[in-house]
Amino acid sequence: MSEHVTADPAPYYRAHVFVCTNEREPGHPRGCCREKGGDDLRDYMKKKATGLGLGKAVRINNAGCLDRCELGPVLVVYPEGVWYAVTSKADIDEVLQTHLVEGKRVERLMLLPTDKLPADIVARRVAAE
Amino acid sequence: MSEHVTADPAPYYRAHVFVCTNEREPGHPRGCCREKGGDDLRDYMKKKATGLGLGKAVRINNAGCLDRCELGPVLVVYPEGVWYAVTSKADIDEVLQTHLVEGKRVERLMLLPTDKLPADIVARRVAAE
Repeated sequence: MSEHVTADPAPYYRAHVFVCTNEREPGHPRGCCREKGGDDLRDYMKKKATGLGLGKAVRINNAGCLDRCELGPVLVVYPEGVWYAVTSKADIDEVLQTHLVEGKRVERLMLLPTDKLPADIVARRVAAE
Repeated sequence: MSEHVTADPAPYYRAHVFVCTNEREPGHPRGCCREKGGDDLRDYMKKKATGLGLGKAVRINNAGCLDRCELGPVLVVYPEGVWYAVTSKADIDEVLQTHLVEGKRVERLMLLPTDKLPADIVARRVAAE
């Protein structure tokens, strides 16, 4: 796709995490990450990342609608482009430790590009057991 | 850094653009992207991207503070992690056409990891002439 040939600048952040905190009107059929706790999870993740000493190299950002509302709360880690559906502080702890500290992946929370509904994730997990 | 060995899922978006729209209190020494027009530029970029037919593969997102306030309004394109300082609709048009449509780079608007102040960008541009 890209016709760009020279190297891009070095990354400004080693990992740039975007946590969806978008809010829709109550009752919207797609729901929204904020009503599912995205806001609190983002605050928790930011504070915890600082506590882990991830410092300036890892940025925990809030983001507007990432357009995967049905699967929320969701977050995405760039530059690797790995998406997670997170529903608790324990999930956040696991993403922080396993992905951002150890450079591994939290398979059970990862989203595939084809995931559209929570049932997709559940079906995949059941199949893996 | 990463100990991860298996392939990550395919990207959900071919390009995921985050435009800083963060607002600080008036008079803050770092300034903020919103007071510099980040909000309008994000709205314009989103509408224009749709008009260009970039469709679902390219997502123009708003973001909270990206922490490069002094250089704002700023945006970052992932997964490539290329940052731009944009100040006008013409800048946005150029990023859309050159980077997102043609897969090249808009060198004159790009930020380096070492850029801290607008003077850094200006000095680099003058040196390149």
